[in-house]
Amino acid sequence: MTTRNIPIVLVSDFGHTDPFAGIVKGVILNICPNAQLVDLTHGIRPQDIFQGAFVLYRSFGFFPKGSIFCAVVDPGVGSQRAPIAIKTRNYYFVGPDNGLLWPAASADTIETCVCLDRPEFCLEQISTTFHGRDIFAPIAAWIRMGTPLHLLGRTMACPNEFKFPVPKLESQGMILTVLGRDRFGNLTLNLKSQEFESGFSALFSLEFKGVKITRVFETYEQAPKDIFFVLAGSAGFMEVALKNSSAARMLKADVLDRFLLKSRREPE
Amino acid sequence: MTTRNIPIVLVSDFGHTDPFAGIVKGVILNICPNAQLVDLTHGIRPQDIFQGAFVLYRSFGFFPKGSIFCAVVDPGVGSQRAPIAIKTRNYYFVGPDNGLLWPAASADTIETCVCLDRPEFCLEQISTTFHGRDIFAPIAAWIRMGTPLHLLGRTMACPNEFKFPVPKLESQGMILTVLGRDRFGNLTLNLKSQEFESGFSALFSLEFKGVKITRVFETYEQAPKDIFFVLAGSAGFMEVALKNSSAARMLKADVLDRFLLKSRREPE
Amino acid sequence: MTTRNIPIVLVSDFGHTDPFAGIVKGVILNICPNAQLVDLTHGIRPQDIFQGAFVLYRSFGFFPKGSIFCAVVDPGVGSQRAPIAIKTRNYYFVGPDNGLLWPAASADTIETCVCLDRPEFCLEQISTTFHGRDIFAPIAAWIRMGTPLHLLGRTMACPNEFKFPVPKLESQGMILTVLGRDRFGNLTLNLKSQEFESGFSALFSLEFKGVKITRVFETYEQAPKDIFFVLAGSAGFMEVALKNSSAARMLKADVLDRFLLKSRREPE
Repeated sequence: MTTRNIPIVLVSDFGHTDPFAGIVKGVILNICPNAQLVDLTHGIRPQDIFQGAFVLYRSFGFFPKGSIFCAVVDPGVGSQRAPIAIKTRNYYFVGPDNGLLWPAASADTIETCVCLDRPEFCLEQISTTFHGRDIFAPIAAWIRMGTPLHLLGRTMACPNEFKFPVPKLESQGMILTVLGRDRFGNLTLNLKSQEFESGFSALFSLEFKGVKITRVFETYEQAPKDIFFVLAGSAGFMEVALKNSSAARMLKADVLDRFLLKSRREPE
Repeated sequence: MTTRNIPIVLVSDFGHTDPFAGIVKGVILNICPNAQLVDLTHGIRPQDIFQGAFVLYRSFGFFPKGSIFCAVVDPGVGSQRAPIAIKTRNYYFVGPDNGLLWPAASADTIETCVCLDRPEFCLEQISTTFHGRDIFAPIAAWIRMGTPLHLLGRTMACPNEFKFPVPKLESQGMILTVLGRDRFGNLTLNLKSQEFESGFSALFSLEFKGVKITRVFETYEQAPKDIFFVLAGSAGFMEVALKNSSAARMLKADVLDRFLLKSRREPE
Repeated sequence: MTTRNIPIVLVSDFGHTDPFAGIVKGVILNICPNAQLVDLTHGIRPQDIFQGAFVLYRSFGFFPKGSIFCAVVDPGVGSQRAPIAIKTRNYYFVGPDNGLLWPAASADTIETCVCLDRPEFCLEQISTTFHGRDIFAPIAAWIRMGTPLHLLGRTMACPNEFKFPVPKLESQGMILTVLGRDRFGNLTLNLKSQEFESGFSALFSLEFKGVKITRVFETYEQAPKDIFFVLAGSAGFMEVALKNSSAARMLKADVLDRFLLKSRREPE
């Protein structure tokens, strides 16, 4: 094996019970039989573009340069929203132009974007309900085979933007928003770990529904039991956690909920 | 890489929590180290041969010619039901002879069928409870290695048939049956989209538990909110859907439930 | 394709909804682009080292010799617990030194164990919360590339031991413990099938919460409906089962629950 096997990475809201993700792989292998296929996850909540965009954004940089991301969270399938492919500095992104690809693609610097309007590169019959199978899978496979983007569709100015909420400074403190919630119940806030460390050090309070969080730890294990705390999460953002338990469940907090962060002058 | 890498496609009711699907892959890779392994899904409901057969039927045609489907939904494991392998016009199917393989295999035209009675092609110890690991996985791997079917077992006349319910014309209208229910809550009916379009056009009513559905749309997005509608689903059958919601949950409908389809003379 | 493609096998409590398992694969493919990646399962209950250890123990022997197991169930991530790699007679195991790897590795005979203290083989930034990505994934990839263990870290005497409970002979009978519970609701007991067969034959009673089980069958299908029974499970241990239903749910039994096994002199 001499060729470097560039992966096609799949992310979607197909779930793992229906055969949709499997069918997408079948279509890709029909065109590119030796593709290295990787599931990022198919567990995005149905039609949750926000979650899909965040998962893609926090993950893409760990994949080999040249990787092709085929992302499908597509409530507008078959409608006016364009199917697109983007070439960024290091990667390719294929999916609907509904914001899903934007945070990852723009973070890597968008070089080219095309609207996928060439049926000769798609399945013979294009349904109105499953473009993951009929358009995005074959296009990802053709990109993997070396087809340049300009052959796959006409160039577009720019895909639709989609931005995560940013911290908001208000009189009572800084409003932070939950960007993600993982299986362990950790809540990812929209505050970069570096910003937290430079701006707040050990004296802060983070409030949510009357609960006040004032402790920061480096690892889950260092934390005492039954005390909410923050730590620098693996996505580069601050997280709210609860040792051996679920902060999300115990706080009844979820994505898009807001926390209030304040500096404290003195230890409590 | 010069050889076309024919995939082995797995579908089962193993779930994704136990190591069963992973073990099956280990056994295959022991025999055929470079196999391209694809999970169609392991989320078939435990022992639900109907669901497994429908998932396989609606999916197989999207895989490369030569693909080997290893399908395990096998409540009769270890009993009299035969373990079989089928060669069809374009594919191979390996699994229990309980109807699971029939709809897909017969749709592609069965050419040969063998009863897997040669222990030398199976694991050394054949358990009575996990033929997916002990028989079907190694057989799929040997087929992938080029072993002809007649070496893997004695030829059988024909596997057991299994047919999905077909639409039934009764005095009050046409009785349709739900064949599938997906993660999004869409309900797949046993009426091909072409038959619907040629026979019913825009004037129809579809009834279930007192709910009357009279609208058809081309895409999910075109539909108004909170109104059940039908559309041509991606499996080639009509589907009942509800925009940004779950028709199955809101109708309390599931696989094998029946809908009544009537023509209407005039718009309501 | 001439090289034998040795798989890297992943097992974790990452779940299938978050992108953690996918990110781990991205990191591996960055170092070893042609790796054959196999998911054993990512459905281990969060932080359940016992379940992870049992799943790995019952599965590893079905994989090709040389396979590299990357196992991550790691509540102590970032703390004093060492990240380790083990070479056994036939396999490699990479993960935290918290007992997770012990039952599988020791069953295959441990030859070398190293503490992974060489950051040059890890990601540039090592987080305190995701060593699966930052340490275990790249180390597994470097082992796959042929890097000898002694270059990856300093040799350790022995990893931490972790032993499953063994049957305990008490005055009233033999106390058995549930080691596993699968999707079908079968309960795996800590009694090897051979020991059951040689010691108890057909005259036994197995008791749990007032329920008395006295029947043994070879297959699920042979059993009558609605009667709990035991059979030789596919992991080599006796299992408690209920035909076409879930013994675990109907008995309200789970991992670590105890059953009492007695010999009977006469048929009941």
